[in-house]
Order: sequence, then C-alpha cells, then structure tokens
Amino acid sequence: MDDVRLIEVKEDILADNAEAADALRARLGRDGTFLLNLMSSPGAGKTSLIERTAEAVAGTLRLAVLEADIDSTVDAERLLARGVHSVQLHTGGLCHLDAAMTGQGLAELDLAAWDVVILENVGNLVCPAEFDTGAHRSVAILSVPEGDDKPLKYPLMFRTVDAVVVNKTDYLAVADFDLAAFRERVQRLNPDAPVLELSCRTGDGLEAWVDWLRGEVDAIR
Amino acid sequence: MDDVRLIEVKEDILADNAEAADALRARLGRDGTFLLNLMSSPGAGKTSLIERTAEAVAGTLRLAVLEADIDSTVDAERLLARGVHSVQLHTGGLCHLDAAMTGQGLAELDLAAWDVVILENVGNLVCPAEFDTGAHRSVAILSVPEGDDKPLKYPLMFRTVDAVVVNKTDYLAVADFDLAAFRERVQRLNPDAPVLELSCRTGDGLEAWVDWLRGEVDAIR
Repeated sequence: MDDVRLIEVKEDILADNAEAADALRARLGRDGTFLLNLMSSPGAGKTSLIERTAEAVAGTLRLAVLEADIDSTVDAERLLARGVHSVQLHTGGLCHLDAAMTGQGLAELDLAAWDVVILENVGNLVCPAEFDTGAHRSVAILSVPEGDDKPLKYPLMFRTVDAVVVNKTDYLAVADFDLAAFRERVQRLNPDAPVLELSCRTGDGLEAWVDWLRGEVDAIR
Repeated sequence: MDDVRLIEVKEDILADNAEAADALRARLGRDGTFLLNLMSSPGAGKTSLIERTAEAVAGTLRLAVLEADIDSTVDAERLLARGVHSVQLHTGGLCHLDAAMTGQGLAELDLAAWDVVILENVGNLVCPAEFDTGAHRSVAILSVPEGDDKPLKYPLMFRTVDAVVVNKTDYLAVADFDLAAFRERVQRLNPDAPVLELSCRTGDGLEAWVDWLRGEVDAIR
C-alpha cells in the first residue's frame, strides 16, 4: 500500500512541475530570454562548455548562468573568474532541478538584461531527465571516457534532449569509444537530435555547437 | 506545507530502509556472505573493476554480482560473457537501490554458495549515497577523466563510503588531475577511507584493491 501512495505523490509532483515549467517559459518569453538546460554526468564538461560558449558569443549574445550544485560553489567561482555572470543554486542534497527551483534562480536575474541563460543542472544522467525545468531546450553532454554504451543505460536522458554533445573528443585516440555506434544509439532513441562532437580543451567542433545554439535562440524570438 | 509533508515521507522511507538494511546484513551473516556496494558515475569503471576482481579472486573466493540498471542488460551480459554469475536488477527509472530492492536481487542467489556478492549500483554520485543497501562495505569509484573536484561537489558519496577507488590512472598523463589534491579532499571528508589508485585497463594497482577487499571479507567472518 505504501508503494502506491508514493507513486501518486510522484505523479502529483510531476504534474505540478509541468505547469510551473510552462509558466516559466511564458515569463521568459515576455523578455525574449532563451533558457538552456545543460545536463550530464559529473565531470563530462558542463562548466567547460559554458566557459567556451561564453567566449564564443561575447559581444553578440548577453549570457548568464544558473549553477546548480548540491553543496559547493566551485563552478560558480570558476565562471566568475572568467567574467561570466553566474548565480549559484544549492539543491540541498536533491539530485535534480525542477521548474520551481529554476524559477528561484531566475528571480535573481534581471531577465531583460540577458539573451541567453544557461542552467547547469546537477551532474547526473538519471533524475534531471525526469523534470521539465522550464527551459526552451535541453542538451545532454556525454564525454568520450564515459563510454559509448550510455544511451542504452540512460535512455530517458537521451530521449528527452534536443541535442547531444560528445565532449572530450581529444580522448578518442586513447579511449575505446565507437562514435558510429554511439550516434546510432542516440538516433534510435531520438531521431531529431543532432549529435555534436567537440573538445572543450582543444576547441575542435565548437563552431558547430555555437551555430546550433544561435539557431535555437533565434527560433524562440 | 507541501514541502514539509514530502520531507516526512522521505524520512519514513529512510527509516524503513535502515531497518531493512540491518535485516539484510543479518541474513547475509548467517551464510557468511559478504556484500559490497559499488557506486560511481556512469562510465567510471564499475563493471570493469568487477571483471578484474572476478579474475583476481577466481579459485579463492566464490563471487556473484547483482547488476542494477535503469533499463538495459548490457552489463549483466558483459559479465556473463566473462563467466561471472550475475543477476540483473531493473530499477524502472529509479536512480538508486534501497535495501528492499537489494533483497529482491539476493533472493535470486543461493547465498550459501557465494563468499562475495558485489552490488553494482546505478551510475550516479548523488542518490545511491543516501540509501543503505544492506551491504557490509561501500566503495566509490572516481575515474581520472571526471576531475579531482568531485569530492567537493558530491560530499555525501565520499563521506559515506569505506574506500575510494581512483580508476583510469592510465589517463593521468593526458588529464588535468591533481592526485594529491584529490586525496586531501577525500581525507577531509572521510579520514579513515583508503584511496586506492588503479587502472582496470592496464591492471596497475589492482593487487592493493584485491588485498583490501580480502581483508574486509575476512573481517566480517
């Protein structure tokens, strides 16, 4: 009996969240601010991709960041040191962000002053995929050392995103990573999501990523 | 008010789980079976470490595996191909294992026939750390490409385990990973946990890991 009650609670949470997410998108739309939800495992390169993206769009898009972390301020400090405006969100142990938490973070920003806000979600391939954060687009990063089998193991993540970034392609020479197999696994789950290969360390492939982002920003305006 | 209600539910869940975990340890103790809970991010090398461990203890410890996955049977098939007895557990979207789920998996094994059961938890540094699975010992694997800052971001994981394995040390030459800084961060959270460096690919460092495991198995007997 306990199990059934818990499932109902979860359904209520997800329904309330979907409503809050739609309201958040409406609020963002009034200021023409694009919100991107960036998800990955710990260490796949979310913060690095944000740093690289901020460099690439400097002078053309005003970019701010919401940094979600369970506990630390490591990433927000790292971005601040690069001159990237960043708000830290602590989830207090929670493994994901929902629309309400995202809304609390956005309330710290003057939305009219920003073209793009990137939400760096908690490092996790499971729970963040279940919650609509209110973002216009969601992206999953998979780094080469994690392995090409991850779409088989975390299908919801790869099914729900609008694009997949393969980071750390500079590791391809030393890792057992079958890029063709990975692409096929993603496509089977999510035929419309582009798979963008890049290396935040070397800069290879970043142009295509930034082009994709610009296109999506334009699409909501 | 909703928030408060949810927290109570969570506390109930954790209290029930702690009781179930103790019962599971008592049951394992009757057969002298040691249960190890292995946790990490996706792709850090849980399955590889299990494969290597199975090779190393073959003929001296009878080892079986519980494979937890959200959806796939990739890892169980991989272990089976190596001749490692393995039971697949599907969590149906859940991001962690609790003692009840672990108990369901163990029910598929004749415990008296196994000296060691390794539980490969869901790939996730957040949620699995919150739940006592009923294991005698817990280990976190951190792979070099994930970065040395992870104890700062996922403190509960590094605080609750009995040992930390640093895998993929063969990547140290190409990664920005400060081993001394990592060790210090772990030690600040968890002074008693040994940090064991190894490479499942090259086999370097595996002996110390297997020695540690043998010592812990002996300790519960």
